[in-house]
Amino acid sequence: MVIVESINNMKNEMKTCKEKGLSIGLVPTMGCLHAGHMSLIKKAREENDIVVVSIFVNPTQFGPNEDFDRYPRTREKDLEVCRANNCDFVFLPQSDEMYPEDFLTFVEVEDLGKVLCGISRPTHFRGVTTILTKLFNITKANRAYFGQKDAQQLIIVKKMVEDLNMDIEIIGCPTVREDDGLALSSRNTYLNDEERKDGLLLYKSLTLAKDLILNGEKDAGVIKKEIENTINSGKNTSIDYIEIVNNKTLKPVLKVEDNILIALAVNVGNTRLIDNIFIDLGEEAI
Amino acid sequence: MVIVESINNMKNEMKTCKEKGLSIGLVPTMGCLHAGHMSLIKKAREENDIVVVSIFVNPTQFGPNEDFDRYPRTREKDLEVCRANNCDFVFLPQSDEMYPEDFLTFVEVEDLGKVLCGISRPTHFRGVTTILTKLFNITKANRAYFGQKDAQQLIIVKKMVEDLNMDIEIIGCPTVREDDGLALSSRNTYLNDEERKDGLLLYKSLTLAKDLILNGEKDAGVIKKEIENTINSGKNTSIDYIEIVNNKTLKPVLKVEDNILIALAVNVGNTRLIDNIFIDLGEEAI
Repeated sequence: MVIVESINNMKNEMKTCKEKGLSIGLVPTMGCLHAGHMSLIKKAREENDIVVVSIFVNPTQFGPNEDFDRYPRTREKDLEVCRANNCDFVFLPQSDEMYPEDFLTFVEVEDLGKVLCGISRPTHFRGVTTILTKLFNITKANRAYFGQKDAQQLIIVKKMVEDLNMDIEIIGCPTVREDDGLALSSRNTYLNDEERKDGLLLYKSLTLAKDLILNGEKDAGVIKKEIENTINSGKNTSIDYIEIVNNKTLKPVLKVEDNILIALAVNVGNTRLIDNIFIDLGEEAI
Repeated sequence: MVIVESINNMKNEMKTCKEKGLSIGLVPTMGCLHAGHMSLIKKAREENDIVVVSIFVNPTQFGPNEDFDRYPRTREKDLEVCRANNCDFVFLPQSDEMYPEDFLTFVEVEDLGKVLCGISRPTHFRGVTTILTKLFNITKANRAYFGQKDAQQLIIVKKMVEDLNMDIEIIGCPTVREDDGLALSSRNTYLNDEERKDGLLLYKSLTLAKDLILNGEKDAGVIKKEIENTINSGKNTSIDYIEIVNNKTLKPVLKVEDNILIALAVNVGNTRLIDNIFIDLGEEAI
């Protein structure tokens, strides 16, 4: 496994791979790797000749009052995970090379980045699409892998790739959960025992919503109210948003008829957790 | 010469070229090709195995009250020019394929796009950088060629490529002028005889400014005043801006000491003309 820290070295390594006709799969991460990341690496390993994991806590996707400084950084452990999962390259760029002082250029997907998480994190997705454009250009990856846990991110990145005619395939992979349902997240490390228990209410409320829909409930307002009640039964929970939206446009639906995304963000103590489910009302529509 | 109208066909043609190890030079244009474009094609021809000219009147770089509708479209003549200049591919994309109805993604170089022409054309450079990102991704060009006549555009595109780690070399080529000094532009076709005469005042004022500087004048205010007087001697001229700026940051200078760009935009009748000169006060600094 090759560890690369400079942009030029990474470009050269990738150029050599491309010249040999090898396909490249990229797993972009902010480190603190968990089983969710591992599922992405595994998928990339199956589908590509070369697997690259990038580890970079990207400052432009954090707001001024967010957790950039305390975000967990576990370099040596992460490298161990990459090694154990047969990665070929780990790209660990330096912040001052990725964003020199005179950096000025941003990539933004309008509208989609202003709803759901974009309301409380107005510059977040612009930071995500900008760093991903850079990583895609540096690695020349054929495919990039993202977890469905960050559903809005996945939808926005797909839209960016389509709109800007980028030559890369975006692959979404199922959310990986603990046995009790908690979606894996690097931010789970912030939770104390009591908060972790409240964190379970996110997935519990989503499965409840799914059951309601499968039993014929179509009124988005009713479903959201049920989710709200479940979340509010926790001692440390404070709802940021609960939304039922079209799974492409992210526009709210009043009636659950098409394929939808139910997404929510909840502050549990000082930790902001997100979770979601996609519900496909295609063939087996009620 | 191959004429390609669909994005996918263009991607496939370029992929084949790349697989053969051929280098690709792109000359992005809005058509109505003149000797300025030909100089870019010639340079691209010298430096690359494959020369691609794109012709696309890009709607996103025109403001709501600008000349998008009346911008000259001379497809057959343009194809003749490309053929005569040994181009390999002409890419003529359709507007509704480049910008489908649900298009949402933009690339923006902040600050640099808000000064000079960006003041009267606030969304212009965002449109330019967005369409160029698309064209760079579609053509996978190794090099792209731009005229120094659009100096701000050239500086902004170079910055975008650097910031987003795009794998393409941006090459600026000298402004091509008529014998009497008028910078070639597709918009010159709008000028009547009297306006064309006034158009000469742009370059006249710039050469005057250069003479002043070479004779020791360092006060940017004094130099701008001289340019202003020259432009205002025309009957149909109305100044949009006259600026003396650092040639990288585009920040105004008070004293002419570094390498600078003198740039101006003047409305001549209903036609907006721009011109500029770079002045290099390096070795032979006064």
